[in-house]
Amino acid sequence: MNNFFNPSTVAIVGASRDPKKLGHIVLENMLIDFKGDVYPINPKAEFILGKKCYKSLLDVKGNIDLAIIITPANNVYDIIQQCSKKEISSVIILSAGFSEIGNVKEEEKIRNFSKKMRILGPNCIGIYNADSGLDTLFTKIHRQERPKKGSISFVSQSGAFGVAMMDIAASEHIKMSKFISIGNRIDIDEIDLLNYLEKDKETKTIAMYIEGAKNGLDFIKTLKKIKKPLIVLKSGKTSEAAHAIQSHTASLAGQAEIYSSLFKQSGIIEAENIDELFDFSKALDLQPLPKGKKIQIITNGGGFGIIATDAITNQGLQLSKLSESSKSKIKKSVPNYISINNPLDLTGDADSQRYKLSIETAMKDKNVDAILLIVLFQLSTLDSTMIKIISDSKKYKKPIVLCSLGGEFTDIYKKILEESGIPTYPTPDRAAAALAALVKRSEYIKLKKKK
Amino acid sequence: MNNFFNPSTVAIVGASRDPKKLGHIVLENMLIDFKGDVYPINPKAEFILGKKCYKSLLDVKGNIDLAIIITPANNVYDIIQQCSKKEISSVIILSAGFSEIGNVKEEEKIRNFSKKMRILGPNCIGIYNADSGLDTLFTKIHRQERPKKGSISFVSQSGAFGVAMMDIAASEHIKMSKFISIGNRIDIDEIDLLNYLEKDKETKTIAMYIEGAKNGLDFIKTLKKIKKPLIVLKSGKTSEAAHAIQSHTASLAGQAEIYSSLFKQSGIIEAENIDELFDFSKALDLQPLPKGKKIQIITNGGGFGIIATDAITNQGLQLSKLSESSKSKIKKSVPNYISINNPLDLTGDADSQRYKLSIETAMKDKNVDAILLIVLFQLSTLDSTMIKIISDSKKYKKPIVLCSLGGEFTDIYKKILEESGIPTYPTPDRAAAALAALVKRSEYIKLKKKK
Repeated sequence: MNNFFNPSTVAIVGASRDPKKLGHIVLENMLIDFKGDVYPINPKAEFILGKKCYKSLLDVKGNIDLAIIITPANNVYDIIQQCSKKEISSVIILSAGFSEIGNVKEEEKIRNFSKKMRILGPNCIGIYNADSGLDTLFTKIHRQERPKKGSISFVSQSGAFGVAMMDIAASEHIKMSKFISIGNRIDIDEIDLLNYLEKDKETKTIAMYIEGAKNGLDFIKTLKKIKKPLIVLKSGKTSEAAHAIQSHTASLAGQAEIYSSLFKQSGIIEAENIDELFDFSKALDLQPLPKGKKIQIITNGGGFGIIATDAITNQGLQLSKLSESSKSKIKKSVPNYISINNPLDLTGDADSQRYKLSIETAMKDKNVDAILLIVLFQLSTLDSTMIKIISDSKKYKKPIVLCSLGGEFTDIYKKILEESGIPTYPTPDRAAAALAALVKRSEYIKLKKKK
Repeated sequence: MNNFFNPSTVAIVGASRDPKKLGHIVLENMLIDFKGDVYPINPKAEFILGKKCYKSLLDVKGNIDLAIIITPANNVYDIIQQCSKKEISSVIILSAGFSEIGNVKEEEKIRNFSKKMRILGPNCIGIYNADSGLDTLFTKIHRQERPKKGSISFVSQSGAFGVAMMDIAASEHIKMSKFISIGNRIDIDEIDLLNYLEKDKETKTIAMYIEGAKNGLDFIKTLKKIKKPLIVLKSGKTSEAAHAIQSHTASLAGQAEIYSSLFKQSGIIEAENIDELFDFSKALDLQPLPKGKKIQIITNGGGFGIIATDAITNQGLQLSKLSESSKSKIKKSVPNYISINNPLDLTGDADSQRYKLSIETAMKDKNVDAILLIVLFQLSTLDSTMIKIISDSKKYKKPIVLCSLGGEFTDIYKKILEESGIPTYPTPDRAAAALAALVKRSEYIKLKKKK
């Protein structure tokens, strides 16, 4: 499997001179960051984007670690035969036009080769690996940003979903390791990928979007073996959507309740919607697990403190009660109109020092398991020392999540903090849900240790 | 009340030379877009930001339509006396330090003047009016963007919440008319503001954030009279949060269920979270009401179509069934691998023309009440003609909402479309919830006509 992610030599079959063709875009993207050798295969072209072309795979002299196929569907079988001759062990078929449109016969012909080689696809957008620079996504980088290198890997059954999510990850400064689009699963499926990512040293956290498992029983067995945090978004929960899935990926969606209870038993964190998939992934990737579920809210906007209180309560979490010594410590150094409660409303004129004292005191307090920090960076009493204060709070090894709402100015702070390891959220509801995911994971780990 | 929004002459009492002081920032912001005359009041300064200062309100010769007070709390009483002498009818007290910190006595002294003048505040951030350029928000514009002129007006019980939401509105290209922060409600409260906005010609849609009403019974009576679409986010629903509210704005939060059922009876659309407040407001502001609840999903990402199907179903909406003639009309002009269903998955290689045909056909189909349009602009077969196609669909007078996920490139499309009247959402869930808000409003209007 490693050749799919870290190949030294890659052939692109169907590389095109036409800038509009997907075979051109893939080659273009592979020439940006990928560190290995790239061989464009095109019987009619001599050079594309300055790279020498080969008439066929067989014309390439050295080994090919990975073949990427992006030709019309009816040419794929011939190319797979060449792959076999050339003893290529890893093949990604990006081409569409197989079982997803009823062309089952052609797909079966190709499937026979999966004993000789591992095949990803067809009807997928392949792989993006921030570590090696491998990028088979056929979206231009000016249309879709790529995330920076991190330790979240993401498996998506839907290619378009993957494209949009990677774009979102990049624009929200979420750092990623690998992305894999599984497509029609002629050979490699979610189970293979989970097993690979579980062992992959660069992956700390796994996110997955799935409509329906290829082999339900094996999928469950695999889920139970995964020790890394795994966050799953399962669509097709309503019967209406389950019906739609059949025409989309030809997989059975299965019953929502069965999946949900299986996820729970296996310690999988289930995302209920698109936002939660990466909201939870980044919390689990960046933050330590809390000992309990007592949350301290610290804010410079009273209204947000109240909304956060509703959110914390609705998530089944509790408001922590600061110890008397913590309370008096804070009380001594803040104006007398601030009441030391939970939510701790530092009020609209809070400065960095007021935040520093509150965060540090709450972090040291045994009654506090985690902090939901709300900062409205718009207010002019705050300055950029906030970045160090928030970022330094990691040393206490208690989870902290940041909620900040705003436009471009706020985004600058969010970007720096997110990249320094503080997960940021645009609303108290999403921050509270992320904390709940951390608590769930912590409870599962404790339960497992007991057994 | 009109003097609060469209004054010709404004005095800023507490205007400061110190760029860090709120009295400086307010003056600075008032000099940007406000069309009337501004008089800074400061006994020690001769000029601030190039404007001639006055030692007191009484030194200003002409009429003052609106006084904005931003001095320490203990000076406010004296200034209010001067306002009374000068016969100023409208006063905004931005200063904090009153009942919210237990200083009830000072607040009561000022309240006595509310027979002679209308007072907004204290402990508020005042008013922003995109129409007149009035801007008493004490956040610097580089820290908080201001939205463009539109027809949504927004009342917030929490100032900081208002600041963040206005920033969000600007960065999400939501156009606004007026924003009012109500603060301690010494005089003007949510009822006055609802009555004003109901009559205000520039306001088409009203959004409101409220923790607790000042006078529950009158509030309900007012809600029932409001004919414009009114979207309310009520916080403090859990008993934990209701407790926190008492220390924040000294108002009783009341029981969540009572509020929710009252909202429903009065045709008020309740937002369950921060996102929904403006998500619903912009849908109701920009789009016509649907006749029924049959929704057509059109997408170029199959996965998103499935997620949207779940969302539509969970919102209690239905998937529309295209008529046979619509189906065959689309079938004729699209590749044979596209199945004409709902969701209508135009697949990853969809071009603008495929979208145009599908949108137009669905809009003309009697079986379709509204469209949930999903477009992944990242995919390279789409071009900028999409903007005209989507924007032109308004002529059919059926609601259409757009769901687009992505980074900077996608944002360009979203900005143009949002400003041209198409509400855009980052996830199918939020788009579906917005459609459900339109359906609720439509059902309420129908019910009211019957009575």
